[in-house]
Amino acid sequence: MLSQPKVTDTFWRRYMDIVRDEVIPYQWEALNDRIEGAAKSHAIENIRIAAGVAEGEYHGFVFQDSDVAKWLEAVAYSLATDPNPELEKIADELIALLGKAQQEDGYLNTYFTVKEPEARWTNLRDQHELYCAGHMMEAAVAYYRATGKRELLDIMCRFADYIDSVFGVEEGKIQGYDGHQEIELALVKLYEVTGNEKYLKLSTFFIEERGKQPHFFDKESEARGDNNPFWYFGSYKYSQSHLPVREQKEAVGHSVRAMYMYAAMADLAEKTGDATLKEACKTLWDNVTNKQMYITAGIGSSEFGEAFSFDYDLPNDLSYTETCASIGLVFWARRMLNLEVNSSYADVMERALYNGTISGMELDGKKFFYVNPLEVWPEACSRHEKRHVKPVRQKWFNCACCPPNLARLIASNGQYIYTERNNEIFVNLYMGNEASFEFNGKKVNIVQKTEYPWDGAVLISVSPEAATEFTVALRIPGWCRKADLKVNGENVAVENTVNGYMYLTRTWNPDDQIELKFDMPVERMKAHPRVRENAGKTALQRGPIVYCIEEVDNGANLPNISLPQNARLEAYFDGDLLGGVVVIQAEAARLEESHWGQALYKAAEEKYQSHTLKAVPYFAWCNRKPGEMLVWLNEN
Amino acid sequence: MLSQPKVTDTFWRRYMDIVRDEVIPYQWEALNDRIEGAAKSHAIENIRIAAGVAEGEYHGFVFQDSDVAKWLEAVAYSLATDPNPELEKIADELIALLGKAQQEDGYLNTYFTVKEPEARWTNLRDQHELYCAGHMMEAAVAYYRATGKRELLDIMCRFADYIDSVFGVEEGKIQGYDGHQEIELALVKLYEVTGNEKYLKLSTFFIEERGKQPHFFDKESEARGDNNPFWYFGSYKYSQSHLPVREQKEAVGHSVRAMYMYAAMADLAEKTGDATLKEACKTLWDNVTNKQMYITAGIGSSEFGEAFSFDYDLPNDLSYTETCASIGLVFWARRMLNLEVNSSYADVMERALYNGTISGMELDGKKFFYVNPLEVWPEACSRHEKRHVKPVRQKWFNCACCPPNLARLIASNGQYIYTERNNEIFVNLYMGNEASFEFNGKKVNIVQKTEYPWDGAVLISVSPEAATEFTVALRIPGWCRKADLKVNGENVAVENTVNGYMYLTRTWNPDDQIELKFDMPVERMKAHPRVRENAGKTALQRGPIVYCIEEVDNGANLPNISLPQNARLEAYFDGDLLGGVVVIQAEAARLEESHWGQALYKAAEEKYQSHTLKAVPYFAWCNRKPGEMLVWLNEN
Repeated sequence: MLSQPKVTDTFWRRYMDIVRDEVIPYQWEALNDRIEGAAKSHAIENIRIAAGVAEGEYHGFVFQDSDVAKWLEAVAYSLATDPNPELEKIADELIALLGKAQQEDGYLNTYFTVKEPEARWTNLRDQHELYCAGHMMEAAVAYYRATGKRELLDIMCRFADYIDSVFGVEEGKIQGYDGHQEIELALVKLYEVTGNEKYLKLSTFFIEERGKQPHFFDKESEARGDNNPFWYFGSYKYSQSHLPVREQKEAVGHSVRAMYMYAAMADLAEKTGDATLKEACKTLWDNVTNKQMYITAGIGSSEFGEAFSFDYDLPNDLSYTETCASIGLVFWARRMLNLEVNSSYADVMERALYNGTISGMELDGKKFFYVNPLEVWPEACSRHEKRHVKPVRQKWFNCACCPPNLARLIASNGQYIYTERNNEIFVNLYMGNEASFEFNGKKVNIVQKTEYPWDGAVLISVSPEAATEFTVALRIPGWCRKADLKVNGENVAVENTVNGYMYLTRTWNPDDQIELKFDMPVERMKAHPRVRENAGKTALQRGPIVYCIEEVDNGANLPNISLPQNARLEAYFDGDLLGGVVVIQAEAARLEESHWGQALYKAAEEKYQSHTLKAVPYFAWCNRKPGEMLVWLNEN
Repeated sequence: MLSQPKVTDTFWRRYMDIVRDEVIPYQWEALNDRIEGAAKSHAIENIRIAAGVAEGEYHGFVFQDSDVAKWLEAVAYSLATDPNPELEKIADELIALLGKAQQEDGYLNTYFTVKEPEARWTNLRDQHELYCAGHMMEAAVAYYRATGKRELLDIMCRFADYIDSVFGVEEGKIQGYDGHQEIELALVKLYEVTGNEKYLKLSTFFIEERGKQPHFFDKESEARGDNNPFWYFGSYKYSQSHLPVREQKEAVGHSVRAMYMYAAMADLAEKTGDATLKEACKTLWDNVTNKQMYITAGIGSSEFGEAFSFDYDLPNDLSYTETCASIGLVFWARRMLNLEVNSSYADVMERALYNGTISGMELDGKKFFYVNPLEVWPEACSRHEKRHVKPVRQKWFNCACCPPNLARLIASNGQYIYTERNNEIFVNLYMGNEASFEFNGKKVNIVQKTEYPWDGAVLISVSPEAATEFTVALRIPGWCRKADLKVNGENVAVENTVNGYMYLTRTWNPDDQIELKFDMPVERMKAHPRVRENAGKTALQRGPIVYCIEEVDNGANLPNISLPQNARLEAYFDGDLLGGVVVIQAEAARLEESHWGQALYKAAEEKYQSHTLKAVPYFAWCNRKPGEMLVWLNEN
């Protein structure tokens, strides 16, 4: 790929503009404690104190630095497509400040520099020390790629070199790893831009050490004089360090930690060609996506530990489904596609991008969900078991990991469209964009035009500077039952797809045109019979978009609405609604209440009245009058 | 009533025998810490230490004494119907020990005597000081009534006199009340046997003080130097002291506390004729039974605070529904019947007696449920939100309130059968028993024979020593749609019932016979449309018995079983099953799983296979191989 694709897509451009115009500026103010009424971040002030340009005490979580790193990474992606000298100046000044905060030996972490300098590397299990380093490495790589400026990259290479001198199997080094995976994937990125194999080896070391016995966290906590059992059921499943990674067959523990680790494993399997590591990735992928994922691509069904629960345990009203976890799933899916071209990875990536990730942000970019449930009864959020479920998005969070994570995802979404392999270009996502590649030494421009996800028509112009042979492989989405394909106006049968991709291998000429048309009817989705929560229920999906019903459209008590098996499901585009979305309408039934009387229980016939059901995209719920929401609908 | 009815009932005798032969002896061993592998109670040892016959430290909850009191009360009821000199000797010795543990001023509480003598009456909010006193008063009254022995009654009158000298509106007295209501209803009992109005007035004082502002618990905690907000959402709703009792319109907070308070309010309304207090009772009754009660008569849907949630919030899998709360509901219902004859109270009382109370005990009396959910997926009990739901009964509990509470309920069940008023006898419950009354100065024997709840036929012989006129009023159960009635072989039309009772006012002669036959088909019950959890679901009920399906009969994944709207529901008695129960059988459908494959979500038609559904009484669930259980069944 000669450059990052320039996203011109109607759907995604709106989000990218919001990230550029609203989210990034707002988060900068938040990081600087300038938002009235919002929880104080103190993150920039911590850096200023560590840099010696301000005085005071450290405040915030031990991982407060990572919010700054994620913001900086989002800024980098945004600058890559939307130059903004003023924003770049702010970022440069922040990077200069980070340079000052870096210690002589290369160490960079404001918590340990300001608050506990003597405790450096004594509690990897809980203190996110390498996690913060990883996020700043990701920011450094992104900023370097976007601007060509090396300052932060150099800072983080120095830090990485120092970390490499501290951790390792060699005598005198710490033979351990972080309680929150992140540096593993970041080091691979550092390796990619620098070519320095030391970083790849260090990443491999962290992954290979994980879960070995005697357990590093036991040794470490014993050294601290801490003999309490670990708070998470006394189990290191929480941080996926209960077993060596190749022995892990099921996703367990904290879901974001899991995603970052699996992503790094996929990276390493790809870079090193390690077949057993690849197998481990595939086993875990199968478990997550076929047994522990909501239809929105939300993962992590348990609030306790922000964690995976167990196979098929997917309660809709208790779900945790952290925004960051779905974002992590996108990261992992992208890397699985690098490891092995298969549309099932792209299907999940698409499901997450259009549903469980962006549901985390209000359409105006000003409020966020940390938790993305599939069923909300606002009154029931007062129950102790549901106190994590917020019926409306919040301005900012004490633990503000999700908003900047979402910002960096959206700002970098062009990176998910294509996979390049030798003389092959795989189109994973359909999204308006302009990209350029080089095949057989010739520059090839590829331009996509589409109104996806609302319309299944996609126009792809493939334009080499001169005729040359290569392959364009088109993903046929898993949700699509009928796809029409034309190349330069001529029909091409969609058949003999390989791992879900339709290969077009030919001599391409300037201005060649691919026309795709994916049938996009409303589908009644069913869950696997073991997902007992959804027995007798259906969810509506059209293209990649999962739908929900809201109280504002359907009145209160949504579970009393029932969709007949034979209901006609109409879809229409409403340009004025929720920024322009396709709405689904159907004649449904609603349990009558008026005749019932007082009794709680009766041997009575139920009465139904007709109800025109209106469903809207799940990602856009709670952008009007707050109220109930439901994805899985009762049927009759 | 000339004496307590002697219960001869097939169904209940078995339970009473178990209480006598298993529960009471087992609990005595448990209270004496002689059960291997069970949590230590230390309750008797605490009394021995307080009595000065042993040395050591206090152990257990602050309310450990109340376990002994409830046990002693159960023993009293058992002795009343089943004399047992050996048991009576043990009880007498325990009472002598309690006499020694009583302080000179009349005070009796082992926690404050042994552990915190200086802290007496400083933390009524949390320390259950008057609660323990109340339970021992109940035991004293029961023991006096059963044996005629006054020793414990005298001990508790001395204590009550002392309490009366400490609490009151008069200058220098504590103007407060206990954080756990109980003494209020106990003092009414003490008044009933002694005729001493002081006790009735003291009970009234506690009820009337409750919820007044400035709040007693605030003043009290301020005096202790404790300025923390109260742990229950910072609210005294927990102990129903957030408002004066007449201003309370909804049941809130800890459900057992609520039941004991409402029971005392009904007692006082009856004894004093206080119309506004009666109205308050009726308002709360309506709220609990029409908006916050499970079909099993389980109440308190929230684990946090063991508490009521809010109207129509009745999740089946998260329910707390403590055994003690349903027992408390029986106490309250019984008193509402005293206050006002209306079969709706008896209907709820019966629902609790046959379902949500006895479900708390294994059929052999050796294990107990504290929590009585309506849906159990054992694997999901590992979820943090469901850790209170145990998939199997436990041997004993740290907080062992439920087993002895159930023992005293079962041992005293004869007290719930009749209500007597002037020359009227109301038959609230149908249960084999022999009782005697006096009307117009003539002794009247009443004998019931029935195989209730399995069969709707009831034979009642009404036998005055000589012909005399009085009224026998028969409750027509709310669940019954057709009842046949004969008096001395002649049909009597069941019509013009008054508040659910059929009045038979006539001159009764020796050996008059009433024959009742209640139609008892299997009913498909529906929940109020606002109980969203049960939308599209049905529960099976036959007579007063609520049914459930279990994995042992129906295989795993019970929510995948669906009962057709038109299914024929067959009931048959199986004498070998679960001690002899009526079983319900129906042709149902089960979601097929084998064809589905791996995918979690598909736009697929569901396939069903036929399944012969077998339902058993809810109270008897988990008496065979443990597994899933479900009350509310999906329909198709």
